[in-house]
Amino acid sequence: MASLHIKSLFLNMGKTVPKNFERFNSSTARKLLYTEYGDPLEVVKLVPAELKEPQSDEVLIQLIAAPVNPADINTIQGKYPSKPPLPAVPGNEGVGKIIRVGANASKEFAEGDRVIPLSSNLGTWQTHLLLPKDCVLKLPRKVQTAQAATLTVNPCTAFRMLRDFADLQPGDTVIQNGANSACGQNVIQICRAWGLRSVNIVRNRPNISELKQYLIKLGANYVLTEEELRTNDLFKSGLLHKPKLALNCVGGKNALECLRHLDNGSTMVTYGGMSREPLSIPTAALIFKDLKFKGFWMTRWTKDNFNSVDRFEMLSELISMMTSNELEAPAHMMIKFDDYKEALKNTLNMQGMIGKKFILDFE
Amino acid sequence: MASLHIKSLFLNMGKTVPKNFERFNSSTARKLLYTEYGDPLEVVKLVPAELKEPQSDEVLIQLIAAPVNPADINTIQGKYPSKPPLPAVPGNEGVGKIIRVGANASKEFAEGDRVIPLSSNLGTWQTHLLLPKDCVLKLPRKVQTAQAATLTVNPCTAFRMLRDFADLQPGDTVIQNGANSACGQNVIQICRAWGLRSVNIVRNRPNISELKQYLIKLGANYVLTEEELRTNDLFKSGLLHKPKLALNCVGGKNALECLRHLDNGSTMVTYGGMSREPLSIPTAALIFKDLKFKGFWMTRWTKDNFNSVDRFEMLSELISMMTSNELEAPAHMMIKFDDYKEALKNTLNMQGMIGKKFILDFE
Repeated sequence: MASLHIKSLFLNMGKTVPKNFERFNSSTARKLLYTEYGDPLEVVKLVPAELKEPQSDEVLIQLIAAPVNPADINTIQGKYPSKPPLPAVPGNEGVGKIIRVGANASKEFAEGDRVIPLSSNLGTWQTHLLLPKDCVLKLPRKVQTAQAATLTVNPCTAFRMLRDFADLQPGDTVIQNGANSACGQNVIQICRAWGLRSVNIVRNRPNISELKQYLIKLGANYVLTEEELRTNDLFKSGLLHKPKLALNCVGGKNALECLRHLDNGSTMVTYGGMSREPLSIPTAALIFKDLKFKGFWMTRWTKDNFNSVDRFEMLSELISMMTSNELEAPAHMMIKFDDYKEALKNTLNMQGMIGKKFILDFE
Repeated sequence: MASLHIKSLFLNMGKTVPKNFERFNSSTARKLLYTEYGDPLEVVKLVPAELKEPQSDEVLIQLIAAPVNPADINTIQGKYPSKPPLPAVPGNEGVGKIIRVGANASKEFAEGDRVIPLSSNLGTWQTHLLLPKDCVLKLPRKVQTAQAATLTVNPCTAFRMLRDFADLQPGDTVIQNGANSACGQNVIQICRAWGLRSVNIVRNRPNISELKQYLIKLGANYVLTEEELRTNDLFKSGLLHKPKLALNCVGGKNALECLRHLDNGSTMVTYGGMSREPLSIPTAALIFKDLKFKGFWMTRWTKDNFNSVDRFEMLSELISMMTSNELEAPAHMMIKFDDYKEALKNTLNMQGMIGKKFILDFE
């Protein structure tokens, strides 16, 4: 690190950097790359990467950790609407530390700063990232690696869905399916932090009581299997207000069961379709109950609100929840970058049952 | 009429009305009534009605015409969410002439004025209606009987759906299914008046070219059968912008075909479900195309906006369209009040294929 520091002094003084610095770094730089869409286990290869010095407005980041999100898998398969031009480095978020600072970035950043990229689809599955200084956000030390690496997708998705689709007041109820998903875990915790009551639907499974305990420890008010939802009298009993918001990442019959409990005039937000079945909405629910059905896609929101006050307020509030232990990282497993195939395979096989995030570990 | 005029003079002077006026009117007053929900042909009976003199703030209306809407049938069957207390007089809209004016109403109304009731579910299938003066709207003479009788449901539904769910500009496209319905015919004409281009989907039928001609004469830009929509290249060819609004009264596969053509971020408004199949929405349409699905129910809108500026602006604009021949009455058939069973039977058997409104004729 000492030599890097000297190098950035060189840069700041506008001098030429000695050649041996390049060689030293380049030998360690590697990236995952795919040149065609297809089976991630086939098309993604680990290859050497070239390191460049930061321009005046740039910083060079050495990655610490980057998660494998289901959307990354779909992107590599060519099944996702955002299709990066090929060849492409996968990966949509992550955390790293700054190892070089461009001259114009030195007021805001220093070597060793822990930062996250603010743009989507930069390709975080590589050891180093060169980014414009306006595309990175410095994090407080207290944010843990797994929290930082997974900050910009799931917690932001949960935050926006709870904030933008209903005027929720403390004491109001939110219902969600796929509650054990990484996003669902964030929904539970943000609901708790905001005084909202969450009703959480999960599929039945062998370890159901363990899963229920885990979600209740996160702050879930109720955790029900699909069968229990169908036969429950939670809302009729008066224990809870009818939900004013439903978050759906499953679709099919499960979503239908959820929407049946919604209060008149409420909204169901769809952000996933794990059952691979369409949403089926009875006409009467639209006309007479005035239910509304919308979708949410974090990628679009980020694109539309890249430099907005809303975005920085959201990131600031989420980071504050993380440092005050109100928002834990999702259940996860760190996997060495070299063992990336294991992370891909596990995510491919997950099918929403395990609810564990696999995070590439570069250290 | 002369005697009635004398009577209202009596009333205005606060004097007692001679008994013989009551007897004269009561002998002609009749109403349709049902005392239990069920088959309209069984439970609806024509019975004598009692006439009362208007209170100071009231007017007495002699009905001229009142339509049989599909929702009236469903209400009588007990299948509709608004359940009037029984016994009830059916009928949700109509036009009449004022035959008595309460003292406090005489500045605004005179005998002979043609008026429509402004409230829903008043029970218009009767020869006379006694209403508070604030619940009636006086119409210009130029509005025809069939237009006036059907003003508050279908034209208002079409108006609000085109106004409240998308920021449409002249040249923008609207797609609707069930385009031959009474509401669909209003949608076509209001689109033409506002410079919107309408793509109208109808089911194939023996007289399809006749129906297409009729709708194109009303102002439809395109009329397609479901099959033609599936194979058309209207939107790909660049002839038309992609629709920014879809109006759905069918559901099922037809609605799915319509939503496939919508521009990103657009809304489908459901106001009926003639196919009796739910709306089936692919997850990707919600998440990646950002399509929104809402419902519209005129009864709720009217209740929520009874005395609003929006409501009177809408009625005023619709009446103006009618007097300037921009908005025709829907295809209809007048049926004598005494033959009400024929109107009920025809509406029951219609199943959306004929697209003709049956209007009870009291004259």
